[in-house]
Amino acid sequence: MSWSQREITLQARPRGVHLITREIVDELPELGELRVGLAHLFIRHTSASLTLNENASPDVRRDFEAWFHAAVPEDFAWTHTLEGPDDMPAHVKASLMGSALSLPIAAGRLALGTWQGVYLCEHRDRGGPRSLLVTLQGE
Amino acid sequence: MSWSQREITLQARPRGVHLITREIVDELPELGELRVGLAHLFIRHTSASLTLNENASPDVRRDFEAWFHAAVPEDFAWTHTLEGPDDMPAHVKASLMGSALSLPIAAGRLALGTWQGVYLCEHRDRGGPRSLLVTLQGE
Amino acid sequence: MSWSQREITLQARPRGVHLITREIVDELPELGELRVGLAHLFIRHTSASLTLNENASPDVRRDFEAWFHAAVPEDFAWTHTLEGPDDMPAHVKASLMGSALSLPIAAGRLALGTWQGVYLCEHRDRGGPRSLLVTLQGE
Repeated sequence: MSWSQREITLQARPRGVHLITREIVDELPELGELRVGLAHLFIRHTSASLTLNENASPDVRRDFEAWFHAAVPEDFAWTHTLEGPDDMPAHVKASLMGSALSLPIAAGRLALGTWQGVYLCEHRDRGGPRSLLVTLQGE
Repeated sequence: MSWSQREITLQARPRGVHLITREIVDELPELGELRVGLAHLFIRHTSASLTLNENASPDVRRDFEAWFHAAVPEDFAWTHTLEGPDDMPAHVKASLMGSALSLPIAAGRLALGTWQGVYLCEHRDRGGPRSLLVTLQGE
Repeated sequence: MSWSQREITLQARPRGVHLITREIVDELPELGELRVGLAHLFIRHTSASLTLNENASPDVRRDFEAWFHAAVPEDFAWTHTLEGPDDMPAHVKASLMGSALSLPIAAGRLALGTWQGVYLCEHRDRGGPRSLLVTLQGE
């Protein structure tokens, strides 16, 4: 049984949904030593989020962003508006998607389905770099 | 401390929300050996999802499906439409519910609340069989 | 490697979103012994939920409640209405936020971002006390 923990800084990205599977895996060489385990990805922010979804079509990611915008609109009766019209919707969207992913590890790799990829959802217009804390455990 | 991992194939189910707690537990005899631990259930698809909710009334599960249909409608300005009108809404619904559940284990059993059950949310009209990867850890 | 598990009873709170980070941490003195690990917080109910979000402004928490009310309205075509108009919306909201949080532990503390706090989302008008089962693992 081993534990490891690593911080990954994701460069600033524009508002929208971004596929980051490859970037994450490249930062985790320890994965290869684990026969079975779990990778816990945690984003340390409240206006960006992580989810798993379709890893092939950029249209899917654009449609996510369009749906977010319709379901959690900027022109709602928000009271917390000091940080701009994109801020409060970003908080709600972040909780809808969630701030963590626990991914199974099998035979030294993330055991994702064929079509699954890790999405970084950037909900602010200019969110800046984002910090992930990754905790690996397994044997 | 022990780890185990097991794939469970869920038979094809119609679109809607299905209670699968019993089916999952029956596939996990190793649960009985764990005094304390966590069971990680992971669905390896991007148009079906897992959540916990009320385990008694079929009406609750029908109401979930009705709400999904209203909140993530098929007649939205989707651009990813090649795989049918139920496909892109299925992706969004899958991320809203999530692809994984981490459930506590206590005294050899899933330590769910009295009213909690595991839901398989099938978001496609014909999604086919679904694959779960279950990772158990504990002592 | 060590495991521990502890039940925490949260006092009854009114419908709305409540910051409970301090209350949780105060109940977990074992955190201080873990160099690296994970804390799994699990709410054993189907009409209240846990999420992480902004820990400073009460306005953010009020805006969450306002959005919930608009996105999952009481005046929808629910069929499960026996337990009152706030019941079925509470079930859907609970699954949108989720019943569990896995939080990284580093150097004896929850490794949350500066602005992240644990929210208890009470979705019933009168939900009563809520039971959390907390599972700590680490080394």
